[in-house]
Amino acid sequence: MVDSFAPVRARPLINTLAIIGMGLIGSSLARAARELNLAGRIAAADRDAAVTERVRVLGLADLATTSAAEACADADLVILCTPVGISARVAEEIAPALKRGAILSDVGSVKGMIVDQVGPLVPAGVHFIPAHPVAGTEHSGPDAGFASLFLSRWCILTPPDGSDAQAVATLRAFWEGMGAIVEIMSAPHHDLVLAITSHLPHLIAYNIVGTANDLEAVTQSEVIKFSAGGFRDFTRIAASDPTMWRDIFLHNKDAVLEMLGRFSEDLSLLTRAIRFGDGETLHRHFTRTRAIRRGIVSLGQDKPETEKLKK
Amino acid sequence: MVDSFAPVRARPLINTLAIIGMGLIGSSLARAARELNLAGRIAAADRDAAVTERVRVLGLADLATTSAAEACADADLVILCTPVGISARVAEEIAPALKRGAILSDVGSVKGMIVDQVGPLVPAGVHFIPAHPVAGTEHSGPDAGFASLFLSRWCILTPPDGSDAQAVATLRAFWEGMGAIVEIMSAPHHDLVLAITSHLPHLIAYNIVGTANDLEAVTQSEVIKFSAGGFRDFTRIAASDPTMWRDIFLHNKDAVLEMLGRFSEDLSLLTRAIRFGDGETLHRHFTRTRAIRRGIVSLGQDKPETEKLKK
Repeated sequence: MVDSFAPVRARPLINTLAIIGMGLIGSSLARAARELNLAGRIAAADRDAAVTERVRVLGLADLATTSAAEACADADLVILCTPVGISARVAEEIAPALKRGAILSDVGSVKGMIVDQVGPLVPAGVHFIPAHPVAGTEHSGPDAGFASLFLSRWCILTPPDGSDAQAVATLRAFWEGMGAIVEIMSAPHHDLVLAITSHLPHLIAYNIVGTANDLEAVTQSEVIKFSAGGFRDFTRIAASDPTMWRDIFLHNKDAVLEMLGRFSEDLSLLTRAIRFGDGETLHRHFTRTRAIRRGIVSLGQDKPETEKLKK
Repeated sequence: MVDSFAPVRARPLINTLAIIGMGLIGSSLARAARELNLAGRIAAADRDAAVTERVRVLGLADLATTSAAEACADADLVILCTPVGISARVAEEIAPALKRGAILSDVGSVKGMIVDQVGPLVPAGVHFIPAHPVAGTEHSGPDAGFASLFLSRWCILTPPDGSDAQAVATLRAFWEGMGAIVEIMSAPHHDLVLAITSHLPHLIAYNIVGTANDLEAVTQSEVIKFSAGGFRDFTRIAASDPTMWRDIFLHNKDAVLEMLGRFSEDLSLLTRAIRFGDGETLHRHFTRTRAIRRGIVSLGQDKPETEKLKK
């Protein structure tokens, strides 16, 4: 469990870092890389000129441009921070600009499709190592980022078979430099793990907020007022960026459908127990789910709620 | 929006307050009533002798007893803080001890069944006014309580037709004295509102944690490690007291089944959109759910997540 940054490096780990897409994740990367001296020079690209203007005003990078290819010129590490759905298009655009020996990585929540779509576009001599920092908030855009976003959070690397060991070590050092805990796994296994720990929870949260929105007998104002009973935690998750999440579901379809199937089967059992007044089944189910919670709190991945509430 | 307590009263609002059940809610009530001088004397009962012993050690009440009837002797306000499933049994036990003019209330998350089951047991001359403070944490027991639990949270009163206006006003003043915002509605409407804002979210959370627990391809340790992607918010909800929640589902069956039916229909639509790659339907759905979130944050019922995370 890491709870503060390592000392700031005397010399940068990376000479030139290029970040493509300056939303929550991209702008947090830029802030952390600068604060912790992980990169000597930061080149930031975003196709939205209003975003690059904010990047300039906030002083997040040495170069802020709407041209992804321009940002990649001479970059030693290029990180795609765009929604998963446009990764391949961006990779195609920057491929000619990537220098030999550079590392190309990303931060997408889906890895199998990225490997399939982006992999073939990567020029020879460029090391393609997909990554996924498991961190985020409900906010989007360059103003929402902050340097400690990745502190004590896991970052999963999914290097394809035969990846260059030195390139993997450099990317690992980069993420560890930001306080993240690095784990390596295959892309398909990543997609299964994330389908249950992140994708299904988001779909369920979006769904229940939609259900609440459509009720005739309960007003939206009542739903909002009385949300402290549990609902508000779902609304926080369901406030995440719609484009990012649309792309995740479309690109991790098989794993999400598998988890959805299991979820629905289990929900049928609980529904039946309620309908037939089977208190024993309900109590048994509600008891065994507590063990996972204890694991999460003891691993420092969440704080007990009382610590947040007590005044 | 209330964000701090009113000044402490010069004279107590209630002479003797009896609290039956000294868990999270009961012990928070005792702490708040004492700190804010809402009661001259506090009598606390819990059928578990280990709990009454903790109440004594913590100094939460003037009397701590395992006899609910003893605690109610001479009480002006009696609040049942037991799981919903045993409210009627407790009401039967204390009925002979209630004094004429006393107010009998509760804190249960279901109101229709309480009115049906407890109402007929209340002696003539005692004012029965059910209540439900919409507040809680994932923790249970007398050590988990704290005086500010109800601050800025809603408390719903569901006085039956023909209730004594003065008794309703006293109970309202008691909750407002603890910083709660009081709203009055009918018991059936309360049960519908809570079914969507609290009961269904808890069932869904319990269900998804169970689904994760049963996977063969993803280990429990992986689920715990990567829970920051959304899952951990569900585990927090699914760590609530199993007995309390079993009773809630058994006692608010009709409203919960109605909400479950709607939830499942809506989930079928999203599942289908994922299966057939219908990104437009997903994006439209994910966009409209953001409005409810904005309402909750602007009403002070939750903080933007970044405020909690930034260091």
